Formats: sequence, structure tokens, C-alpha cells
Amino acid sequence: MTDIKRTDTYLDAHMDESIAELGKLCAIPSVAAQNTGMDEAAELVGNMLRQRGFSVQILPTGGAPVVVAERKGKRSEKTLMFYNHYDVQPAEPLELWESPPFEATLRDGCLYARGVSDDKGHITSRLFALDAMLAQADDLPCNIKFIVEGEEEIGSVHLPAFIEKNQELLAADACVWEFGMVNHEEVPMQYVGLRGICYVELSVKTADIDIHSGLGGSIFHNAAWRLVWALNTLKDEHERIRIPGFYDAVLPPSARDIELMGALPDVVEEYQTRYGVKSFLKGLTGGVDLRVAEVFEPTCTICGLTSGYQGPGSKTVLPAQASAKVDFRLVPTQTPKQVLEQLRAHLDAEGFPEVEITFLGGGPAGRTDPDDPFIQLVVDTAKDVYGVPMQIVPMIGGSGPNYPFVTVLNQPVATAGVGHPGTQAHAPNENVRLDLYLKHAKHVVRIIEAFANA
Amino acid sequence: MTDIKRTDTYLDAHMDESIAELGKLCAIPSVAAQNTGMDEAAELVGNMLRQRGFSVQILPTGGAPVVVAERKGKRSEKTLMFYNHYDVQPAEPLELWESPPFEATLRDGCLYARGVSDDKGHITSRLFALDAMLAQADDLPCNIKFIVEGEEEIGSVHLPAFIEKNQELLAADACVWEFGMVNHEEVPMQYVGLRGICYVELSVKTADIDIHSGLGGSIFHNAAWRLVWALNTLKDEHERIRIPGFYDAVLPPSARDIELMGALPDVVEEYQTRYGVKSFLKGLTGGVDLRVAEVFEPTCTICGLTSGYQGPGSKTVLPAQASAKVDFRLVPTQTPKQVLEQLRAHLDAEGFPEVEITFLGGGPAGRTDPDDPFIQLVVDTAKDVYGVPMQIVPMIGGSGPNYPFVTVLNQPVATAGVGHPGTQAHAPNENVRLDLYLKHAKHVVRIIEAFANA
Repeated sequence: MTDIKRTDTYLDAHMDESIAELGKLCAIPSVAAQNTGMDEAAELVGNMLRQRGFSVQILPTGGAPVVVAERKGKRSEKTLMFYNHYDVQPAEPLELWESPPFEATLRDGCLYARGVSDDKGHITSRLFALDAMLAQADDLPCNIKFIVEGEEEIGSVHLPAFIEKNQELLAADACVWEFGMVNHEEVPMQYVGLRGICYVELSVKTADIDIHSGLGGSIFHNAAWRLVWALNTLKDEHERIRIPGFYDAVLPPSARDIELMGALPDVVEEYQTRYGVKSFLKGLTGGVDLRVAEVFEPTCTICGLTSGYQGPGSKTVLPAQASAKVDFRLVPTQTPKQVLEQLRAHLDAEGFPEVEITFLGGGPAGRTDPDDPFIQLVVDTAKDVYGVPMQIVPMIGGSGPNYPFVTVLNQPVATAGVGHPGTQAHAPNENVRLDLYLKHAKHVVRIIEAFANA
Repeated sequence: MTDIKRTDTYLDAHMDESIAELGKLCAIPSVAAQNTGMDEAAELVGNMLRQRGFSVQILPTGGAPVVVAERKGKRSEKTLMFYNHYDVQPAEPLELWESPPFEATLRDGCLYARGVSDDKGHITSRLFALDAMLAQADDLPCNIKFIVEGEEEIGSVHLPAFIEKNQELLAADACVWEFGMVNHEEVPMQYVGLRGICYVELSVKTADIDIHSGLGGSIFHNAAWRLVWALNTLKDEHERIRIPGFYDAVLPPSARDIELMGALPDVVEEYQTRYGVKSFLKGLTGGVDLRVAEVFEPTCTICGLTSGYQGPGSKTVLPAQASAKVDFRLVPTQTPKQVLEQLRAHLDAEGFPEVEITFLGGGPAGRTDPDDPFIQLVVDTAKDVYGVPMQIVPMIGGSGPNYPFVTVLNQPVATAGVGHPGTQAHAPNENVRLDLYLKHAKHVVRIIEAFANA
């Protein structure tokens, strides 16, 4: 049996080393969308795992490589999988960062860097937990596997096929997901479902070159206008997505889902303060209705718009090209394939056959039964660290490739992690709170120990 | 009397010097929208005029300064005004330039640079014409004035008030406008009317910071969506502008206007080849209908769209801010003031009070009678240079501040210039053909001589 007190003492004493390791990993600008530093980051993660006695393979996928690592345990034959990713979101807009995004910087008990929370802090804090266990024993209590991919932030384009092909290599009894967080009341959250995603770029080209707007305005097709009109057909001002058939595959939340959502604290004030928003969509004002809408409804979100002149002042130009980044969040049992087909048919039917659709990645929603014993184990072991057990959230708004883990590998997937509501994942000044980093490492020790003993 | 043959010989022999002077002026990146190099360009233009014996004033406007210059003539007491501008459009997108935009580069008989045609080539070719006249006489045949402003490309924000206040200083009997061009059949065009313009930026802010799209998509207002929906209310897919009252002040073209438009050559093939467009708006296929639509209808053109993530690949973000650059081209008797009021009322009525309107400049349309004697003079003098007289075009699609010249200063305004259909004004690889540069200088000599003698 692992002496939990000794692991806690170890972790309290060695934070600086783990934070230094995290800083090294954050220094690599492994932005999947921009395809920078991917191999370098995979190598460094592989080396970190080798240093902990793992046998490591860095495997090709057709895109960024996947790091797969395993270390056998002695006491239990069961295998616990950790899913993580070494890629990060783009750091733009750079001017809003208070310290350089790829130089991890400590301020007021938080470490700031792009990817410091999503997801590099999760990688190093989990390795830190293993360090604490290996400091008092030659072996881990059970088999541990890591799968660390490099395309999570661009929709895990190649991961589902990779999992399909490598089921034996990736076999495990349960999986700890790449993230987790406490809510604004410092209660750790157990997210057992992730929405799916279908991320596309819609682009229009109406001429070979931009045209003087004085010359062209009355007679030439304008790519920006075509895009605006095409986008307008996708969703109305009441948030109803107008693509025929889009809602057909949507399953409503179960009574248990609504019960669990109803147990969650209200988030209205928290959101209003954090994001500076005054009101919510669809007349929502809070309570369980807002919480259910937040995650059990599919979305169509414009993530970016680009066309013509975007500098200061005016330029009188009629743009030849325009494009939009659009993400659809999916709920069970919607699939990206179906959405892509419906979207194409819809744009054609609405008179926009010239709008090109480029699929930039995605996958269906994946869910684990909130009453699965592994979920209960992760929830219960949190209490000793956080003072309270985890609160189960049946579905989260974000996405990730948990679908193939749940459906192909048959693994229950539980979340646990270093995040907090102000962690600014995907935004400038992403950060991790050092106290939560340490707590997550302590929680991981307890999860592994309980899992080996169960 | 000026010996026109001798001026032609002078101009043929001294092209290199004038092109060198133009290159120097193009080296100053006087981009009004970005407020760079404005004073420097005004100073250089002022010095060029002083070198030709002009008394020069560089006068403040509240924005970029205006250069006003005068040189008295001997033979005639009449005054001919030249209106030009030393500011240029932004050079972006830089990657599409084949040579650096602010280094004038000669290729295949054309000089390439931002502003080389619009409008710096017009300034130096007109000075070149004066050089040729002064090379054979101590005096010019009539009074010549220049007004060279620095805000033409951003809607001449301060010029109308400047003209209103300086009517005596700017008094003249006729005005030669800043531009002119031959059409695709090498026929020089006489544009006697310019559409007005009202250029605005529409911006929306829905939160203090961008939000993770997985978290926010279902419940938070999205600035990009709000902008798309607001824009969609401005114009429908049949090009009908939906702002109430927008068309109320529109005067239809006169029978003479339509007669003149009907005399113009068809431009369909020319446009299709030059811009790579397949079809035109509103089912237009060519002929007088297309030519009339091109200039006698007001427009609402999206010149630019900006929101959220615009880099490669995907970023799952819900944008807190979005904006569009929109230009309205106006026909008599629409005014920017009226359009701004109607636009605000319309956005409010459509449920978009949060969409902010920033006026970036503009003015009403201005027209000179196509049968004015000065127009005829400029048209007729072209024949000796171009082999054909100018073709009168009652209205052009572009805009400029001719309204106060026509209405406040009571000057007939004629166009003449160095442009050609491939001149790429406002686009990458802007250029001027050297043969047309020389022809314009020769034409200007003839205009001044005929004007002094008339």
C-alpha cells in the first residue's frame, strides 16, 4: 500500500521541480493550428515519460504524432489510462498577454503561459504524482498508460482512426481525461460527458482580385455579402439553427441528467463578472434551465470572420474573398458527418452553392454513465484533497475525442484536473493556480491507489 | 501663344526626370488611413510647387494639411484650378505586391507603386506639363492654382469645411479633377459626375473577453453573430437596401444621361477578363442597363469583416467583438448625414441598438453639366494627343469631394488623367503606363493653352 501521507509530503516539497518541468514544456509553441513545434513537444513528453520508467512509442497518425507510453504495475493487473495532449491553442491576440505566452511566468500564485492549463499542466502534474509514488516504492501499484496526442485543439483529426487501429495497444480498464477543474465555489467538478464538435471553414470567392468599391459596388458580387447572407441562413436571431434535419438526432437530457444539473450551483453572477456579459441568450436568467441549455443543446458558433480591409480607418474595396470559422457543438446522437451533409445540402438549397465547406475536425459527443463505479471512485477520492467530493456534471459544453474511448475502447472516462474558472483556456493570459496544481497531483495519487485496490 | 510642338518635344525628352520626381513622391508612405508620412508628403508637394514659382501655403484642416498654391499668369486673368491629393490607400495585402509598394519600380513600360496612379502620378505629370510651358516662356498663360489635400482616401473628412472657409483663396473659373483614364479601347474618358460616399464602421461588443466556444455557444451573445444579423438587415440578396427612406432622395438619370451612357462601349468582356467574374448582380448582362446601374444606383458595400480567430486551422472561441467596414455610394440628392440618421434608426428598429456606427468620412455626389463649355474644351483638346476626343461619361461609380467645388466654389469640374483599366488603384500592384503619363502631360499643356485663349 502506498503511504499517502508520504506522497503528500513529497509533493509539498518538490513543487519547484515540477513547475520547472512544466515551464520547459510550455516554452515549446506547439500550436496545432499553426503546425509549430509539434515533433519537439512530442519528443519532450516522450522523454519525460521515459525518465519515469515508461516504455514509450511516438507513433505517426498522418498528422501530429501520438505519444503512447506504458509502465507495468505490480500489485494489480488492472490498467489505468491517462489521456492528454501536448498541442495548444494559438496565442493570438498577442497584445493582450501580460507576459510572453511561451515563457511561463509566475504572478500571485499562478503560472501564466499558453497551454499551462490546457493541457501541459495536466501532463506534468500527473507525472509529478507518479514521482511521489515512485519515491517510496520501486513499482507503481497498477499498470499505467498514457496517450498524449497533438491535435486536440484542432478537433483530434486523426485520433479516432488511430484508436480504431490500435485497440490492443490502448486497452485499459478506465481512463482519466485530460482536464478537470474546480468551480467558482472551489468544488471539484466531475464531467462525465463532452459535447461533440464539427468545425468548418466557410469560404467564398467572387473574383480574382479585390475591386475598387466605387467601380464594383453596384454590379459585382461581393464575397463578404455572400458570406453574410449564407451565414444568416444558418441560424436565426432566436438561436434556432435553420439547417433542415439538424435537430433530428438530438436526444433530450434524461431525468437523472436534469437532477444532476439541478444540483449544480447557479453561475449567473460568476459569468456576469468574469466575462462582462449583461444577459444570456434565449431569455435565460439562470437556474437549471440555463445549466441544461448550456450543455444539452447543440450550437452553431461563428468563431471568426475575415474579409477585405481590416486595418484602421477606411479602404474602399470590394472584397474578392471572405471566410468564416464556424463550430457546431453536437449532442448525442449527432455526428459531424451528418452535419456536414446537412450543411452542404442546406447551403445549396438556399442558393449558396459557391460557399465552400472545409472540415477542420471534430467528432460525436461521448458520455460515461454518471453512476459508473470508476466515476464514483474518482469523485470519492477527491474529498480527502479538496475537503468535498466532486460534483457530478453529466455533460460539459466543451468537446474532446472521448467518443472513441467510450465506444471503441469501452473505457469509463472520468475528469480530474488543475483548472479553475479563471484559467483562461483558449484566451490570453491562460494560467494555472499552483495550489490547484498541487491538489490535482495529490488527487491523482489517490485515484491510482484506490483503482489498484478496487 | 505657347508653341505646342516645342512643349511636346520637351516632354518627350524629359520623361526620366519627371518619373524620378514621381518615384521620390511614391517613396513616402502617405497612407491617410494609417496616418503615416502625411506632413512629409505635404512638404514635398509644396516644395515641388515652389520650384515651379508657385507661392505655397500648407494649411491646417484639423486633419492632414492642405497644400494650396498659386502662380499668376500674364496673358489671361482667368484661373484654372487643379485638385489633387497626396495621400494614398493602404498597401495591404502586402504579400500580393510583386515589388515593394513604396519603391517605384519600372516593369514593361509601367511604373509600379502604391499611389503611383492614385494620385501622385497626376501631381507630377501636371507639374511636368508646367515645366514644358515654362521652358519656352517666363510666364504661364493664365493663373494656375493647385489644391492638394491629404484625406481623399479616407473620405476628405475636413475638405468641405476648409473650402467653405477659404472660398476667396480657392476662387477659380474651372477645375481639373485629380484623375482621369482611358478605357479598355484607349479612348480617354471625361467623367463629369462622381457618386457621393458615406463610409462607416459598424462594431459590436458582447463581452469583455473572448469566451471558449464550448462553454459559451449555447448561452452567450456572440459579437460575430450579432454583426452578421445586423448586416443582413441592411441589404437583401436581390441588392435592395432595406434601410427605410434610403431611396427617397434618389434622382433617376436624365434622358441625356442615358443617351451618354448608351454611347459608351460595352464592358462585359473587359470586366470578366480583368476581375475573373462570371456574372453580374441583378441579372445584368451588359449594355446600357449595366452601365446605368453601375453608377446611377446607390450601393451598400461591405469593404471588410473582422472578428475572432482568423489564422490557419481552427480556434474554438466565441468572439467578444466584431466589426465591419461598410461604404454607401450615394447618388444625387442623397447625403451622408441623412444616411447616418436612417442607418441608426434602422438598426435600432431592427433590434440592434448595440451596433455602434463610426462615421469614417464622406460627402454627397457632385455633378457638372456634361454640356458645360469647359467640359467641351477638355474633351476637344484631347483629340490632338489621343487621336480621338474624350468620351463623356455623365457619372462615375467612384467618389471624391467634387460636391463643394461644384456647389460652393461654382467651378465646372472636368477629369483628365494618367489612368488605364489595369491601373489597380486601391489594389496591389498599382501602376501607371508611361505612355499615358506622357499623354496626360501633353493634354494638360493643351488644356491650359486653350483655357487661356478661350
